[in-house]
Amino acid sequence: MALTLSELARWVDGDIIRGGFDLSLTGMAALDAAAPGDVSFLGNEKYYGQFLTTKAAAVIVPTGVSDGPENVALIAVENPSLAFATVVRHFAIATRNFTPGVHPGAFVDPTARLDVTKVRVQAGAVIMADVSIGDGSDIGPNSVIAGNVVMGQDCRIMANVSIRERCVIGDRVILQPGVVVGSDGYGYEFSGGCHVKIDQVGIVEIGNDVEIGANSTIDRARFGKTIIGEGTKIDNLVQIGHNCVIGKHCLIVALTGIAGSSRLEDHVTIAGQVGIAGHVTVGSKAILSARTGVTKSIPGGLVYAGNPAQPIRDDMKLHALVRRLPKLIERVKALEETLQISRQQD
Amino acid sequence: MALTLSELARWVDGDIIRGGFDLSLTGMAALDAAAPGDVSFLGNEKYYGQFLTTKAAAVIVPTGVSDGPENVALIAVENPSLAFATVVRHFAIATRNFTPGVHPGAFVDPTARLDVTKVRVQAGAVIMADVSIGDGSDIGPNSVIAGNVVMGQDCRIMANVSIRERCVIGDRVILQPGVVVGSDGYGYEFSGGCHVKIDQVGIVEIGNDVEIGANSTIDRARFGKTIIGEGTKIDNLVQIGHNCVIGKHCLIVALTGIAGSSRLEDHVTIAGQVGIAGHVTVGSKAILSARTGVTKSIPGGLVYAGNPAQPIRDDMKLHALVRRLPKLIERVKALEETLQISRQQD
Amino acid sequence: MALTLSELARWVDGDIIRGGFDLSLTGMAALDAAAPGDVSFLGNEKYYGQFLTTKAAAVIVPTGVSDGPENVALIAVENPSLAFATVVRHFAIATRNFTPGVHPGAFVDPTARLDVTKVRVQAGAVIMADVSIGDGSDIGPNSVIAGNVVMGQDCRIMANVSIRERCVIGDRVILQPGVVVGSDGYGYEFSGGCHVKIDQVGIVEIGNDVEIGANSTIDRARFGKTIIGEGTKIDNLVQIGHNCVIGKHCLIVALTGIAGSSRLEDHVTIAGQVGIAGHVTVGSKAILSARTGVTKSIPGGLVYAGNPAQPIRDDMKLHALVRRLPKLIERVKALEETLQISRQQD
Repeated sequence: MALTLSELARWVDGDIIRGGFDLSLTGMAALDAAAPGDVSFLGNEKYYGQFLTTKAAAVIVPTGVSDGPENVALIAVENPSLAFATVVRHFAIATRNFTPGVHPGAFVDPTARLDVTKVRVQAGAVIMADVSIGDGSDIGPNSVIAGNVVMGQDCRIMANVSIRERCVIGDRVILQPGVVVGSDGYGYEFSGGCHVKIDQVGIVEIGNDVEIGANSTIDRARFGKTIIGEGTKIDNLVQIGHNCVIGKHCLIVALTGIAGSSRLEDHVTIAGQVGIAGHVTVGSKAILSARTGVTKSIPGGLVYAGNPAQPIRDDMKLHALVRRLPKLIERVKALEETLQISRQQD
Repeated sequence: MALTLSELARWVDGDIIRGGFDLSLTGMAALDAAAPGDVSFLGNEKYYGQFLTTKAAAVIVPTGVSDGPENVALIAVENPSLAFATVVRHFAIATRNFTPGVHPGAFVDPTARLDVTKVRVQAGAVIMADVSIGDGSDIGPNSVIAGNVVMGQDCRIMANVSIRERCVIGDRVILQPGVVVGSDGYGYEFSGGCHVKIDQVGIVEIGNDVEIGANSTIDRARFGKTIIGEGTKIDNLVQIGHNCVIGKHCLIVALTGIAGSSRLEDHVTIAGQVGIAGHVTVGSKAILSARTGVTKSIPGGLVYAGNPAQPIRDDMKLHALVRRLPKLIERVKALEETLQISRQQD
Repeated sequence: MALTLSELARWVDGDIIRGGFDLSLTGMAALDAAAPGDVSFLGNEKYYGQFLTTKAAAVIVPTGVSDGPENVALIAVENPSLAFATVVRHFAIATRNFTPGVHPGAFVDPTARLDVTKVRVQAGAVIMADVSIGDGSDIGPNSVIAGNVVMGQDCRIMANVSIRERCVIGDRVILQPGVVVGSDGYGYEFSGGCHVKIDQVGIVEIGNDVEIGANSTIDRARFGKTIIGEGTKIDNLVQIGHNCVIGKHCLIVALTGIAGSSRLEDHVTIAGQVGIAGHVTVGSKAILSARTGVTKSIPGGLVYAGNPAQPIRDDMKLHALVRRLPKLIERVKALEETLQISRQQD
């Protein structure tokens, strides 16, 4: 587990500014929480005060910083925050590495295809008929993987996750606790005074390196597929409707809802509590501020805000004008008075 | 499983426009995904191009369409989308029909009343004391049905659902994965600097033919009942507060929250991310656009928008006026200039 | 279970206005639902009509009420609603009191520390390595308590709850079904066209007497702790981001999201669907109306509304001005006409 300063420098591709090559590093922590032996990092200048008083053994600093508190080793890199992620991974790996095998309290259908010397199935997990699970994947306690699901390698499915039948999950997918993949889309026909359910016989297909946050829900397609593109990261309590196609490397923050059949192109960023109507397209690299409401397709490459969505500058201008309404009313009143006076003078 | 064209026509009450009575149909798909042997449908004219190139064996078309691609059988009906739902149901039924019985990994309290030759209890499901479950119901893996719950016939409870004690569930109710029914209402009294919990001893009563989407939550009443009326369909991640009374055949789309003791009359339609305050009534057949905020009771039969809610026409007018503020400011400026000039001329 | 009128009076610290000391009370209900033998309460004058026709054996009334329907015993207290909560607790306790022990269908790691004569672990629950659970706590069916979690006494963890590794739970904490505690925070670095996951190695620490509603999610800290202060009550479907510090005795209503590293001071009240950006502070005793959007730190002691948040009076004024825009436009038009006329007269 322990790491020397020179090993660390090599890993993060950084320059040792100060400190002995053999300095032993045994853990990691934030600047203000670090104890002797810990690696820390200076990711943002507003933490410079904490940097000066840290008890860390070594600090990863941005290129250009050449000095620091006494007795603290320094390694310079371009992006300390990213470099530190590597360190975190090193120290976290010991706890993450799992012993493969099927817990005696798990339920694995005999037709399921998985290598019990390479996959872990935890207590209470249910793996149903004809499921296929790739090597290195870890199925959390009390999760349910329904019939004919195909899952790739090195996935991390946490506790109480539900994946419904026939859905397809790529490699290195992380599903936080309580995630639902493949629930029925919200589709009804109104007939005879009732809403008649339209069966949802499609699936959800999740690309490689996707992460989905706790208790988020991804509906299966009516036919065909609801798609989450590779590298996309979804936060907690997000709803993705049936037949949506979410591009690659998108970010979708908590409590956002995307209605059925809508499409995000690649690298779209969506802040919290955004709502997107059905059957619209959000262009590549668009950024939607918190609470934006998208009611029709919008081109990519711009930052949006407001409901309905408009370029954020227009939205801010409009808000500023509203805030200046009291002044405008005064100006109108002044005009009325002037005019009245001038008319009276006539 | 296979179906002849004449059987299909009879089922959907349609007219065979083209094709042999004995044509065998073996599956179903959307126009652009259909393979030989499949039934498809033309639900919307914007798919007419796909219709012309489909590989389907038969297509359900709207009355009036009399021609189509060569070698494709045609059946005409009034509502192809609804007719197709019938087809989907036929082909889906084979996978849906279940073998009744209690999985050896399920936990059924000996006092529970259910006919194991007619009910399925899947792996890891927990059926607690004095629960009663009607024939044809299917309890999903790792779902929990707490003490004294009464459930009707032909319900479909999916994975990881939680139904708390004493709640009453009608017939043909569908609960998607992760649904919570009967959680405690959010009720506290402030006393001595603390919020003291008010015990919530009521229940939730869910009518026949209700469907509730993934990870939605329905709180139990403080006393009495929180009621979800028959035929109502609730989407994912919806919150219904304690003592709410939701009418019959309502639609409630994702991420909507309805606070305690509010009432929807019948046939109310609520789009996504709507918020309804506590102790208000929304009248029958009201339609609430996405994000509407309801702060006091509103009459039925109208379409609403905005926060606070107002008839959508008023809301749109107000938005249009705000968007014309820059013009109004220019007009005021012009008036000021004119007046100044005319005064200087005096 | 049965209670005499004099016992009741002593418990709620009330005065018997009418009725025999030995009157036996066997249940409780709302005024209009009460049956003979029941205790009820008059919590709000709008229920006075129900009070006059109640079938309850005894009613808890506010001080000052000295008369009521015939044959109904009366006990006067300052806060009948709060007093009644005590009664509810008494009658509910019989159903709540549990028989300790580990269900044969639960999975408890041999390294877990809990006294099986004082703790209940229900069917399908999974208690992992090195977990510690205090006396009187009740772990619901199919809940998962991951490795090294430390839980206090008298907690009530309901069905399908997920608590991830190393989180710390105080005494008397209630987690409704589907709650997730300790999911990974939403943290990525953008590098090489991809979002690279930043491991989240911190924990969540939940204080005494906290309650968290169904399917709410509390993310673990990147380092250190996400903290929920003692006595805070969180409603359903609420998202608390990583490294948030929520003060003591706060209320947070459904569908609210609080982004990472934000801080609520004590006694903050947040209505439904509120959004709070990351890295901001909400001052003590602030009240946020439904849907408020907080984008920067705001002082305590005030009521806020709007997006961005402002004191509610300012927000209401602004809304009123917008609603008067049609009138303003008319005034400008009148000015224009007057001016044109007066210019034409020149």
